[in-house]
Amino acid sequence: MPPINRCLPALRCLRLVDNAAQRQSLRPLTRIARPTIRHHQSRLHHTQAEASSSASTADNAPQSPPATSKPEVKYTSESYPNIKRNSKFKELSADDVQYFKDLLGNESAVVDGVTKDASAELEGFNSDWMRKYRGQARLVLKPSSTEQVSKILAYCNKKLLAVNPQGGNTGLVGGSVPVYDEIVLNLSRMNKIRSFDDVSGILVADAGVILQQADEHAAKHGYIFPLDLGAKGSCQIGGNVATNAGGLRLLRYGSLHGNVLGLEAVLPDGTIVDDLSTLRKNNTGYDLKQLFIGGEGTLGIITAVSIICPQRSPAVNVAYFGLESYENVLQAFKESKKHLSEILSAFELMDVGSQHLYRNATGAKLPLEGEYPFYCLIETSGSNSDHDSEKLNAFLEHVMSEEIVADGVVAQDETQLQSLWACREGISEASQHWGGVYKYDLSIPLPELYDLVAECRERFKSNGLMGETDDHPVKDVVGYGHMGDSNLHLNVAVRRYDKAVEKALEPWVYEWVQKRQGSISAEHGLGLAKKEYVGYSRSETMLRLMKQIKDVYDPNGIMNPYKYI
Amino acid sequence: MPPINRCLPALRCLRLVDNAAQRQSLRPLTRIARPTIRHHQSRLHHTQAEASSSASTADNAPQSPPATSKPEVKYTSESYPNIKRNSKFKELSADDVQYFKDLLGNESAVVDGVTKDASAELEGFNSDWMRKYRGQARLVLKPSSTEQVSKILAYCNKKLLAVNPQGGNTGLVGGSVPVYDEIVLNLSRMNKIRSFDDVSGILVADAGVILQQADEHAAKHGYIFPLDLGAKGSCQIGGNVATNAGGLRLLRYGSLHGNVLGLEAVLPDGTIVDDLSTLRKNNTGYDLKQLFIGGEGTLGIITAVSIICPQRSPAVNVAYFGLESYENVLQAFKESKKHLSEILSAFELMDVGSQHLYRNATGAKLPLEGEYPFYCLIETSGSNSDHDSEKLNAFLEHVMSEEIVADGVVAQDETQLQSLWACREGISEASQHWGGVYKYDLSIPLPELYDLVAECRERFKSNGLMGETDDHPVKDVVGYGHMGDSNLHLNVAVRRYDKAVEKALEPWVYEWVQKRQGSISAEHGLGLAKKEYVGYSRSETMLRLMKQIKDVYDPNGIMNPYKYI
Repeated sequence: MPPINRCLPALRCLRLVDNAAQRQSLRPLTRIARPTIRHHQSRLHHTQAEASSSASTADNAPQSPPATSKPEVKYTSESYPNIKRNSKFKELSADDVQYFKDLLGNESAVVDGVTKDASAELEGFNSDWMRKYRGQARLVLKPSSTEQVSKILAYCNKKLLAVNPQGGNTGLVGGSVPVYDEIVLNLSRMNKIRSFDDVSGILVADAGVILQQADEHAAKHGYIFPLDLGAKGSCQIGGNVATNAGGLRLLRYGSLHGNVLGLEAVLPDGTIVDDLSTLRKNNTGYDLKQLFIGGEGTLGIITAVSIICPQRSPAVNVAYFGLESYENVLQAFKESKKHLSEILSAFELMDVGSQHLYRNATGAKLPLEGEYPFYCLIETSGSNSDHDSEKLNAFLEHVMSEEIVADGVVAQDETQLQSLWACREGISEASQHWGGVYKYDLSIPLPELYDLVAECRERFKSNGLMGETDDHPVKDVVGYGHMGDSNLHLNVAVRRYDKAVEKALEPWVYEWVQKRQGSISAEHGLGLAKKEYVGYSRSETMLRLMKQIKDVYDPNGIMNPYKYI
Repeated sequence: MPPINRCLPALRCLRLVDNAAQRQSLRPLTRIARPTIRHHQSRLHHTQAEASSSASTADNAPQSPPATSKPEVKYTSESYPNIKRNSKFKELSADDVQYFKDLLGNESAVVDGVTKDASAELEGFNSDWMRKYRGQARLVLKPSSTEQVSKILAYCNKKLLAVNPQGGNTGLVGGSVPVYDEIVLNLSRMNKIRSFDDVSGILVADAGVILQQADEHAAKHGYIFPLDLGAKGSCQIGGNVATNAGGLRLLRYGSLHGNVLGLEAVLPDGTIVDDLSTLRKNNTGYDLKQLFIGGEGTLGIITAVSIICPQRSPAVNVAYFGLESYENVLQAFKESKKHLSEILSAFELMDVGSQHLYRNATGAKLPLEGEYPFYCLIETSGSNSDHDSEKLNAFLEHVMSEEIVADGVVAQDETQLQSLWACREGISEASQHWGGVYKYDLSIPLPELYDLVAECRERFKSNGLMGETDDHPVKDVVGYGHMGDSNLHLNVAVRRYDKAVEKALEPWVYEWVQKRQGSISAEHGLGLAKKEYVGYSRSETMLRLMKQIKDVYDPNGIMNPYKYI
């Protein structure tokens, strides 16, 4: 990574904007058309690493070591010995396999042991990409139509064969791979764009369409898919909706609960739910599709999605700055909403520890010369680059003259834009630099968001587990995340994994979040990893009501068992 | 109303913008800070009139005549003789009344017949403001806490006393007043703002807070409530959420399904659903609150709402123009999204017939001299008035030079802005000008949206019911609505109500909408008025699944009976 400090103008120069000579030395803000595929690989890595999540949520779950070799992936049944196979589920028989082969054809039913290739292929469907979860499915089905999905589920429901719905298998909490021998129902062959309305921006597509392809299709018409995340090159929009993925555009475009206009889904008994509306307004009864958004495949399988795509912004600007306190961060966020209002598309927070981690792990020079306890990254996206730059400059001048922001830089070309984003996106990968990391993905009301990091640091200081010398397991406690969405990533960087550290962290972190009515899973869902901890974010009443819904839709419990609530 | 044509610059001058003399004669676009309360009264009238809806949905339902005197309001039980009182519901006893008085105090339990005042007060709770529906409730309860609501419902559920939840009673489909002797549970005493987060813009408030008060509270902090509608001065946010109100800001800020972050609600058995999250991201289980959004009080009663408020826009511009075809309207809408993108806040459609109706009824001069088959109103709202004007000008120059738009004007001050809005908002009131009107509030996919109006007109021409002479019942068929939301108001202006007209309209209109997978109720909900017609927008499967949900939450069916699905 190239050092970027020298090529970026210091924002403090903006204070002297009346000085003609100084102003001439300032390069004008450059408007950058953001490429469709923006550092996709690093994002994928980053987001997924962020989600490897609380090491201690499963004591035996493997933590990726900082080394390079891939560890042998334990079966989930070994990592979670408390989860027993539900004996009510039937084991797969030759007759069952024959039924599915007759229905789908040989190529769309991958059976274990038939050939060496088939077994290797099965392994890919059984394991998550983090190599943290590994199931024992002996059959993968790849239907190519909603009717086929319906027939598969009706058969499974009747025979009590458990089913694991699977999209791009990029999930982060073990929701997308089987625990035992659940049949994997993979949506990848249902991958057609059904329609795109050029005037309204409404896209209707099969669930198995890759997110990036959906976005590229929208881009051809001048629109943007209202969701963006690191795994966009392999995740599927059906899986995105099923997990209510949050991602990078939520601050600007809102959640899938607002943007998804309709769904087609298949219930466990084979019923096709035909709710694939393309209307923005439709007040004719309960909005049942919402249950499937974030239902993680436990109520049925989403087979198609109708979604409204906003206008694509041709102009993108990125700024990075240092601040003296979290109070200042809050003020800067508030001012950014005021000044940048309709063009603000990202407001990211990084504390100094997270930036040190990034610098130490990558050798990159940080954008600012001075050191500050907090850093923020702001992105604007708008339809007019001159207007956007003017708004951004006015905002920056304001926050600097009011001493809300201490120093900052603005990207002038795509390379600089990427470098600034790397300071935020590179943290997660860097967080294991000292040996390992305990990670939490949390929602906390903004005013208290950073308190958790500060208190956690104090906790490790006072219990003697954190220090500069190697006899202390904890090296540092850092915080960063999607400030605009109140989404904090708490990272405890350690020299080695240690039961004492885990005991100090849990249930303390969850209790802390619970007291502030936060969420123990901001955007990654529950899956297998968070199932046991949902009580910290949801009351007994809510859990009872959720179980009631599950019983209504899936009385036999065949859909994605052992997970969720 | 002042004629505004002379004081507004004709947009065709914009073509000659290089001509210095011409340009000087153009007054610059004026940026107007939109007042918090914008022609509220006329809006209320307008929106409510729009919703008086398909006259033929209830043959006996009174249609407001063009005359001034108020008709005697029939009991709903007389207007809808097919609906019988459900005999399983208990009739109110003295013991019941005593229980509620002990619980709430005398003042919060209004009982029929106790005093003359009480009886008059009861009449207000029994009738909707359109004077179209009239119930026979003998008791109105006004709890002041969630706990009281819980105790009331638990008691009613046990005793099988039916309950009619009521907010501001501004509903348009008969959902907010009883049909028979259901107890009215009015939320008006639960009217406190619980919290407002100045940084995130998240408002938490009791369900009984008036929409306008919620918006004014947000405005004090520089935010805007993400919903705006004509009845804002009297409707309550709990009722807005319960009916999934659409309103004027949906195009810009999206639906309540995306903006409501949390709810507190009470189930029929008294269970308090504590889902009052203030988090933008919270992926911990089924999003049950969504069922209550648009559930119209049939599953439980919303007692508090948490909602995210966007930044308030200080600059507002309005333009009005004429177009030669619906194809041009579609193109103009597409271009407006491209050019105005993040600042577009309204795109309204009016056909020439609707503008003639408005002119004939009010005597107002229309903004443009020439006559065009279609007119559009565009509003922009942004944070920088210079930028917004520049974007709007660029858009207008483009659509005029491309001959998408034939002529147009831009408001230069608040009076002109109001006058332009009046051309859209005055239609509904004007639609009864010739004697009466049959009205439909529909969602139709944009490309076909206006076809319904054209086909309906042809229908009445060919069946001989429409003509210029008085022996024809139909005077004109006009269309207008929220183009940006695909929301059409089809109005059949008649000289007199006539069974032959009704027979030509229904079920033809509903079948037409059904074929295009449109919605028979875009934003007003089902209530009593649309209950029988929901099958035109929802499949048997969907209706079965909805009834399943109703049975889960309200097995005794005490909540808002006789309505919805």
